Amino acid sequence: MSRVLVTYRVRAAAADIEAVAESLALEQSVETPRDVVRDAFVRDEVLGRVESIRSLDAEYHEVTLALSATTMGGDVAQTLNMLYGNSSLHAHVELIDARFPADFVRHFARPRFGIEGLRALCNAYDRPLTCAALKPQGLPVEALAELCYRFALGGVDLIKDDHGLADQTYSPFDARVRACQQAVLRANRETGRNTLYAPSMVGNPASLYAQARLLREEGVGAALVAPALIGMPVFEELVAAHLQVPVIAHPAYAGAARVAPAFLLGRLFRLFGADAVIYPNYGGRFAYSEAECRAIADNARAPWTGVRSALPVPAGGMTVARVPELVGCYGNEVMLLIGGSLLQAGDALEVRTREFVERVAVCAQQETAP
Amino acid sequence: MSRVLVTYRVRAAAADIEAVAESLALEQSVETPRDVVRDAFVRDEVLGRVESIRSLDAEYHEVTLALSATTMGGDVAQTLNMLYGNSSLHAHVELIDARFPADFVRHFARPRFGIEGLRALCNAYDRPLTCAALKPQGLPVEALAELCYRFALGGVDLIKDDHGLADQTYSPFDARVRACQQAVLRANRETGRNTLYAPSMVGNPASLYAQARLLREEGVGAALVAPALIGMPVFEELVAAHLQVPVIAHPAYAGAARVAPAFLLGRLFRLFGADAVIYPNYGGRFAYSEAECRAIADNARAPWTGVRSALPVPAGGMTVARVPELVGCYGNEVMLLIGGSLLQAGDALEVRTREFVERVAVCAQQETAP
Repeated sequence: MSRVLVTYRVRAAAADIEAVAESLALEQSVETPRDVVRDAFVRDEVLGRVESIRSLDAEYHEVTLALSATTMGGDVAQTLNMLYGNSSLHAHVELIDARFPADFVRHFARPRFGIEGLRALCNAYDRPLTCAALKPQGLPVEALAELCYRFALGGVDLIKDDHGLADQTYSPFDARVRACQQAVLRANRETGRNTLYAPSMVGNPASLYAQARLLREEGVGAALVAPALIGMPVFEELVAAHLQVPVIAHPAYAGAARVAPAFLLGRLFRLFGADAVIYPNYGGRFAYSEAECRAIADNARAPWTGVRSALPVPAGGMTVARVPELVGCYGNEVMLLIGGSLLQAGDALEVRTREFVERVAVCAQQETAP
Repeated sequence: MSRVLVTYRVRAAAADIEAVAESLALEQSVETPRDVVRDAFVRDEVLGRVESIRSLDAEYHEVTLALSATTMGGDVAQTLNMLYGNSSLHAHVELIDARFPADFVRHFARPRFGIEGLRALCNAYDRPLTCAALKPQGLPVEALAELCYRFALGGVDLIKDDHGLADQTYSPFDARVRACQQAVLRANRETGRNTLYAPSMVGNPASLYAQARLLREEGVGAALVAPALIGMPVFEELVAAHLQVPVIAHPAYAGAARVAPAFLLGRLFRLFGADAVIYPNYGGRFAYSEAECRAIADNARAPWTGVRSALPVPAGGMTVARVPELVGCYGNEVMLLIGGSLLQAGDALEVRTREFVERVAVCAQQETAP
């Protein structure tokens, strides 16, 4: 029977780690004392096995379990359950990584566009993509649409709603999406570009699926969704069955420090259908280290049989001045997202947006020079 | 405009805490630098306000923000977003509690049965309720149904599936639910009791809603659902629109240590519709302290205008020997759940189950004596 290899970082004394690892294997498979397992099928196939233990230091160990893929049944929620259901309640256990069998991934949505698909839509191949953010929430629909228009004139590839924009009375989803999409189309007619608008989709399944219908009706070009906020099972169903455009994953509520960000954002969000993955970049408002950010980007882009690459989108307090450094760090396979700093330009928003876009183009050219 | 008061535990130097609290208020409302906020409505109504700062020690502070309820729009995902969307990515910020305006709660499912409703269904008023767990996963349907039958003969009030039971090939959801429900009904006819069966519901929205249909068709008496696993927005929609029976919330995947368990399990799961809330009890397989467990139980049962009480269900490595202690700790308004330890009795399962049930009855009588 095919197995998923799941790696945890476990805090335990060296003398105890073998017993602790065995308990973990019970907890994440049969969830009973060992002596309750009397059935041969359960013992041979369902029971988790300790595959390896590697000590990191006196206190921390990397434990890899082999868990039966059949217990996960190709379902998102059940996969999370088997990876980290009860053990998430154990303070000494962190979920670090998982390796899935080749035939496992076909159960899930996976990126439908991926990096290549996004590039084709934006007609941009030899440079990082660029992204701006519509905010603050509380502005009326007309003000948001006007911002959209100016960002698009400035030439960014993608304009995303602030993830705080939902279906509030002051800028209802339907009216906002219609107005912003029209504003972007108007700018596109003037510039000849194909800037995409990605509205923020938030809600329960019924609302999300209604929002997806509106996106289709209006011909909206992308969608922004926070998988941890709406729930990963809904996210996957939304992507697989309701959205026909690239999906940008937002990290809101994903900051459960107990799941390694590179695994959660870079691998799971990708497996479940994100074409691009936003994450808090180092040196901004958030405390992720450069190494952690590189690991997220690496996981999002790494070759994975049957699963398209997803575009890394470092964000959170980025500025135009940092563009050369960011391109130096991530190369061209990235989308740079600048939010508040473009908005701070006030009336000069379009000019600063254009500076951003041009700076990216220049840095990219330098990078591909011999 | 009505405000939600949200409390965070923030790590910062005393000299910095005011600035850190102001940043938090920006992050959780407009998510832009302060100078981007030019619109009067946004400034007066949408912008988060620091309500109070209370220093816990030199390093930790309790920061309470007043956030606009309108930004949350009565939606589960958006409420999570405003409470802890981006700040979940900040290692120095933990979500501790929130107080909602009175008219806020009516947007959500809330317990439809609550403690009183559960007691009425079980016809048990003056003692803790009792619960056993069907496991390990991997057993065929007939073996699980047989366990159900024997647990029900033993006289527990509720039999819950192990949360690991989903829709696997070795015990498919439909066949399992039909067989277990029939087994419980057969036992009920023999005992004259009304033991309830709570199948574990896991999946994406489409599967969950199909599972709910089967529960209705089969007349199943309760449901076990892990809100963190399927996503809180789906959980709430499932309860509000698809289930007509009491809902037992399981804590799988809820162990994001960054949200206080008493708030997440005791208040949010309750607000979103749990009639009973399972949590890892102190002194078992999990490391929650007695104080933390009491706080979860307190929150689940506390008076809350417009929101029925939810029944606390301490669990995780409990034994019959601990019944007196547990009743001493929690009183009668509790459901005691014993899992693996009943199954360890093997052929004596029914006898040990009956011991469990009788021990609870005896302890409860003592407690209500003068």
